[in-house]
Parts: sequence; structure tokens; C-alpha cells
Amino acid sequence: MGQEIVIGMDLGGTNLRVAGVAANGEVVALRREETAAREGPEAVIGRIVGAVRHVAGLVAAAGGSVRGVVLGAAGIVSSGEGVVVSSPNLPGWRDIPLRDRVAGEVGLPVLLENDANAAAFGEHWRGAGRGCSSMALVTLGTGVGGGLVLGGELWRGADGMAGEIRHLTIDPGGRTCRCGNIGCLETYASATGIVDRYRELAGLEPSVGADGVHGLALEGDANARQAFREAGRALGIAFAALVNLLNPERIVVGGGVLPAWDLFMPAAEQELRRRAFVAPVSRVRLVAAALGDLAGVTGAAGLLWRRCGAAGPRG
Amino acid sequence: MGQEIVIGMDLGGTNLRVAGVAANGEVVALRREETAAREGPEAVIGRIVGAVRHVAGLVAAAGGSVRGVVLGAAGIVSSGEGVVVSSPNLPGWRDIPLRDRVAGEVGLPVLLENDANAAAFGEHWRGAGRGCSSMALVTLGTGVGGGLVLGGELWRGADGMAGEIRHLTIDPGGRTCRCGNIGCLETYASATGIVDRYRELAGLEPSVGADGVHGLALEGDANARQAFREAGRALGIAFAALVNLLNPERIVVGGGVLPAWDLFMPAAEQELRRRAFVAPVSRVRLVAAALGDLAGVTGAAGLLWRRCGAAGPRG
Repeated sequence: MGQEIVIGMDLGGTNLRVAGVAANGEVVALRREETAAREGPEAVIGRIVGAVRHVAGLVAAAGGSVRGVVLGAAGIVSSGEGVVVSSPNLPGWRDIPLRDRVAGEVGLPVLLENDANAAAFGEHWRGAGRGCSSMALVTLGTGVGGGLVLGGELWRGADGMAGEIRHLTIDPGGRTCRCGNIGCLETYASATGIVDRYRELAGLEPSVGADGVHGLALEGDANARQAFREAGRALGIAFAALVNLLNPERIVVGGGVLPAWDLFMPAAEQELRRRAFVAPVSRVRLVAAALGDLAGVTGAAGLLWRRCGAAGPRG
Repeated sequence: MGQEIVIGMDLGGTNLRVAGVAANGEVVALRREETAAREGPEAVIGRIVGAVRHVAGLVAAAGGSVRGVVLGAAGIVSSGEGVVVSSPNLPGWRDIPLRDRVAGEVGLPVLLENDANAAAFGEHWRGAGRGCSSMALVTLGTGVGGGLVLGGELWRGADGMAGEIRHLTIDPGGRTCRCGNIGCLETYASATGIVDRYRELAGLEPSVGADGVHGLALEGDANARQAFREAGRALGIAFAALVNLLNPERIVVGGGVLPAWDLFMPAAEQELRRRAFVAPVSRVRLVAAALGDLAGVTGAAGLLWRRCGAAGPRG
């Protein structure tokens, strides 16, 4: 009696993860490698195909069978056409028909989805959003990502672009974002933004990364602590927008900045409470993401399991 | 062969409207009167009951029959319990079981909904949102209201509070809103906000209302024109939030400020294009509301027609 498995992929600018996921959400096989995106689309597609075959082999060796593959990819993705339209983190990716390229190589049904959407569905299905009807995922890493689950279903919007909170305007007269605009959330609340702000406050150009600023803050460095607090305040303004617009049950916060929770979340929560309506604020719970770097692969697979009748809203 | 009718109500702080609405959305009977909210809940409930009976009488006189009543009410509404929890525009309304009070008097099935949600559903069903899958309604009047239709269904959120864009933060260091917070959309883009800003720019205290500022702007008054432009810019930041978060097909703009469209919408559109992603911006259409002050009654009735299988997503 072979176990049925869906293969989920999470393709980011840095990491490629491919997993075999059972109908109950359990990850039964996993392959992690570097994306090496600088080598261009063809090399990356080759690595994806190799990783999918590898995981399919692990599944077969355990007596299981693969029902299909869901590819979660960073960037602007047309799910309907199976095309990665463009991707800021994947150089050279423009109108790449990734779904059909992979399907042709692996001989399995393949779907394509945006990686942040997949991660939001993953946290809802098996992680910190489990059991609720509506949630937003906000991931704080090199950049800021997000996805929405509304009424138990992924809300993609008209073009699969919903949940893009990264360029939400926090302060129209504020700092210039790398997108060229002024005052975007990402420029305050991403790891990059926190480091930039720390350097600005410290008045020097130290070669410090996000972990370094986190360490300094834990040691009591006032500038580092302020950089995190300001990130929290910006995040709270974005949370208030989510709460006022969507009245969700939960906001799930994930990403590499998560371990610094105590340094930014109190300021975020205070700002949220100042700026959002009482009823939806008392409803919403701010919770830490539970699946770590497996949210994307889990959610990608979950989207196919949902189509197959598993991964139900209360599953 | 009596026509079946649903009675829809729209209860605001100033006006009470009750209409008989056919399954195709046609308004076949209408009663408009003043809310006279200052007289308190009991007097207003009496007027609602009287207006519903009046419209039911008109329907009966035309040989029709009433299937039910849907009450759209301004304020925080618990649809499940049928209770108006509180309402800034209805003095003395606190935990009023409006649904059961009206049902007991008129002997018909009654539902309760927030008025802005009902209006959004109305514009989607029969107005400027017709035929699309996802839209936001933004109404610019004395205050700013809003509602969301996602996937063809009203998105209420966990407490019926979704779509409250009025206190979206536009500028965290900006003007103080009457809610006590800083930089809310309502303080810039409502009729009240536009008048306040005009007075500020004109450096005097003229007794001018929103229509007056509109007239001055049309005559070329620079301060009046700037007040509308600034309202438009604030609105564009809010539109960008809607577009980045929800990737909707349409944003429908309604309310008393609508006739001044040409004075604020170019600035709103420019700001939207600066601040939102290219793909969802090229998708979204900014359109004027089509149902005027009948959006609320139409949408309220439509919510029951939808439950009855009429008022379908593409109806």
C-alpha cells in the first residue's frame, strides 16, 4: 500500500527546496540546495528537475507514489499560464514557462504558484494559521513578503499578486525604497532596512549584518534597539492596514527576523492598537510562523492536496 | 402571479431609505425619510418599522409578496446576532437587537448587515462592479466608507468589520483625525477633510461647505483646487494599499464628493501608479459608483436574493 505524495517546491533567490508532502501535511522527503540564481534560468531549471526527480526517487524507494508537483516560485507568476513573468531575485527570468518545462521533464502533473502565496497557504494548513478562517502571512527577511488566506482559501487577486504588502506606503515623506518609491514598508521592516537604519543611527559604515544588529540589540546597544523599534512601528502601521481592511483572525509573522520578535513586536502591537478599530484589533492574534523554511514547500503541496479534496479549511 | 420582493433598508445618521427590490435588482418601491437620529433608538426603530410596513403595503397593493427584509445599518453590526453594537452616527445606539425588534413587529424574516458592506454588494450586483470578481467600494462623503467584494462574495472579515478604509494611515506624522489618531485617510479625503484643508489654506474661517469648495475650485480658486488635489493624493495612497494587498479588478468610488471627480481623481491615479505594482495597477479600473443613494438598499436586498439563489456573481 504505497503512500500518495505531492511534491512541493519553494524557489527563492538563494535557496531551492523540494519536498514530498503527504495528504496530512507531513514532509516525508526533502531536498535543499542553493539556487545559484546567477547561473541563469536554464541552470536553475535543471536543478529543479534534478531535485524533483531526486525526491520522487525517495518517495518511490519508500513504496509511495507521486500525485503531482506544485512549484512555488519567487516573483510575478501567472498560475493560469504556468509562467514566471519576472522575478527580481532570479536574474534573467522573464516569461519562463516553468510549469510546462518541468512537466515535460518529469512526466507528472505540475502547477505553478507564487512562493509567498504558497507559504501563506502552508502556515494556514499546517502552521500558525491552522484552524482559523482568515489570516495574513507577513515574512520579514532580506525583503518583506506576504500572502492572504480568506475564508479558508488562498486569496490570489486578479493576477496572483495579492498580499504584496512589501511596498505598502508607511510614510509618504519617508525613506527612499530600492523600488524608487518613498516610505515603503520594506525599507523599514526588512532585515536590510533594519541594518540600513542601524548604520544611519550609528553614524558609521560598520560591516554588520542583520544578525550582528540583533546581537548588538540584545547587548543593549541603543541604536540597534531603536532600529528594531522603528521597524516594529512601521510594521504596526501595516498591520493596522491589514486589520482595518480585512478584519482577519490572525496575522502570522515569519522570516529570518523572527528570532528578534521581542525587539520589534511590542512596538508593532502598540502601533496597531493605536491605529486600528477596537473590535477587529481585539479579534486579531499576532502569532509567530510555525513552519520555518518548510512553509513554502508544505503550502505548495497543500494547494494540490486541497484540489484533491484533502487539506480542507479545518484540516 | 405576484412578484416576489425583498425589502432592503439603508440606515445612516442622516437618511433612512427602505426599498422593495425584485430578484433582478430592480427597485419597485421606495421610501426615503430623515433618520432624525437625535430622537434616539426607539424613535428610529419606530420609523424603520413604519417604513418597512409602508413599502410592504406598496408591494402588496401591486400584487406582490415580500420574502424578507435586510437591514443595512451604519456602525458596528453583529450580523450573526442581529445586533447594532454601536454607531458613531446614531446617538444612543448600543447593543440594540435591531433584527429581532423589527422582525417581531413586521412578521417577516429579517437579516442585519453593515451599511457599507451592503452598498459594496449593491454596486457589485447591479452597479459599477457588475461582472467583476473582486472590487473595493470607497465612498467619500461626510466620512469615508468602504466595503469589499472578493471572489464575487462580500468579504465581511471575522467581525463584519472588513473594508474599513477610513482610518487607514496615510501619513503617520500628518493631520489629527477626529478619531484621535494621526494621518487617517478620512481626515484628508472626506468632504469634511477637504473643507477643513481649504479653510487652512485660505487662512480664514469662511462658512463654506463642501459644495462651496467644489464651486470655488470650478471657478479656479487655487486653494480649493489644492485641497481637492491633496485629497486625491491621500486617496491614491489608500488605493495603492488596496491594489498591493488585494489585486482587485475594480475600485468603485462613490459618495457625495463624486461630482468633483475631475478635481481629485487625476491626483489619486497618479499617486496610485507611483506606489503600486505594475501588474495589479494595469489590471485595476477606477470607476464611478453607479447606483447613487440606492446602492445600500439594493445591496441589502441583494444579500438575501443571493441566499435564495438569485443575485449570482455574474447576475
